[in-house]
Amino acid sequence: MEKSFEPASRRSTVRRLARRASYDPAVIHAILDAGLVAHVSFAHEGQPFVIPMAYVRREREIMIHGAIASRMLAVGSTGIPLACCVTLLDGLVYAKSAFHHSVNFRSVVILGTAREVTEETEKRAFLDALVDRVSPGRAALVRAPNDKELAATRVLAMPIDEASAKIRTGGPVDDPEDLAWPVWAGQVPVALRAMSPIQTPEDRDAPPFEAPRIAPGLEV
Amino acid sequence: MEKSFEPASRRSTVRRLARRASYDPAVIHAILDAGLVAHVSFAHEGQPFVIPMAYVRREREIMIHGAIASRMLAVGSTGIPLACCVTLLDGLVYAKSAFHHSVNFRSVVILGTAREVTEETEKRAFLDALVDRVSPGRAALVRAPNDKELAATRVLAMPIDEASAKIRTGGPVDDPEDLAWPVWAGQVPVALRAMSPIQTPEDRDAPPFEAPRIAPGLEV
Repeated sequence: MEKSFEPASRRSTVRRLARRASYDPAVIHAILDAGLVAHVSFAHEGQPFVIPMAYVRREREIMIHGAIASRMLAVGSTGIPLACCVTLLDGLVYAKSAFHHSVNFRSVVILGTAREVTEETEKRAFLDALVDRVSPGRAALVRAPNDKELAATRVLAMPIDEASAKIRTGGPVDDPEDLAWPVWAGQVPVALRAMSPIQTPEDRDAPPFEAPRIAPGLEV
Repeated sequence: MEKSFEPASRRSTVRRLARRASYDPAVIHAILDAGLVAHVSFAHEGQPFVIPMAYVRREREIMIHGAIASRMLAVGSTGIPLACCVTLLDGLVYAKSAFHHSVNFRSVVILGTAREVTEETEKRAFLDALVDRVSPGRAALVRAPNDKELAATRVLAMPIDEASAKIRTGGPVDDPEDLAWPVWAGQVPVALRAMSPIQTPEDRDAPPFEAPRIAPGLEV
């Protein structure tokens, strides 16, 4: 884990198991680029809400989007504090003792506020990046958003400034006196994997279009 | 989607694309039982925080746990409002238009407060359920928590009362005028999959223990 980067703030400092924390932008960006779903949180009168959203990173911001009618995006565009978490589950860790069971994961938490992206060129670039995220190069192939669709879509960008990563890797760490306990111990890696593409029935009589390039990391 | 269940409260009512929402406990429980990571959110002085946590459902509660030193669990045990979200990514949806790209998913959001589980029998039952979640039947095989470990672990249980599920399935829904656009359209199912177990090196000279039963749903 990098030791040469300092947390951006006290509240973004990882407290539990700080040895698993990183504040290195390269580490944080790599995790964000490998994820597909962010959990975005905001509070209203003390009650937190948390919502899963597709997202994409561009430079030092992550972008979320949705319908102009979305309450979360409307509230989020007013500059209220947000939190955003991306988690990748990498494995299940089976120890000799119940206590030392664990999971391998990579996660990033970002705190901050969002700005609404309203300038058309920038808004289109963000939406293109979102399509390219699930299939590299695809934004140039599909029908681009028209003015009505652009107006119906709210795009928020949140800076990746106050952010921390947390990573666990490897097998179980058992207590020495448990090592002979008669049960299998080790790790089972897990990963999100793509299965065979299912073409839409409407295309059955169409020219044989090439299946989309799969999002990096999901290939079997 | 079930129509016969009403939301438990206005704030747990799904507003966007309500046709994808469900308040049926059976639907909510099935999603919770298929997930491995929950995103738990709380707010402090208006700033939301969101943290990934392993969890397990027992009856009409979900249980999270961690070190007694965990800030989130300490704060969560005081009865402050929490939000908890479990999301399963099921597929990427490729439309003819950028606008109609989507993802298939199942998610549950729970609002409420947590109680701390302190009674020993109940606490052990919850921790056993957590081990059995990642390998059915395993809690009986591993070294059970001792008193010191029990004291070092905080267990919170949150009722699944104010909860909603949201589900998207199927292929893209394009506008009729885009259906002839010359690009592949359809869906690519994705799922979390387990890879080959990696036994801990310390077990190399041990009797050949049987590899753990993999958590249901992760089998390749």
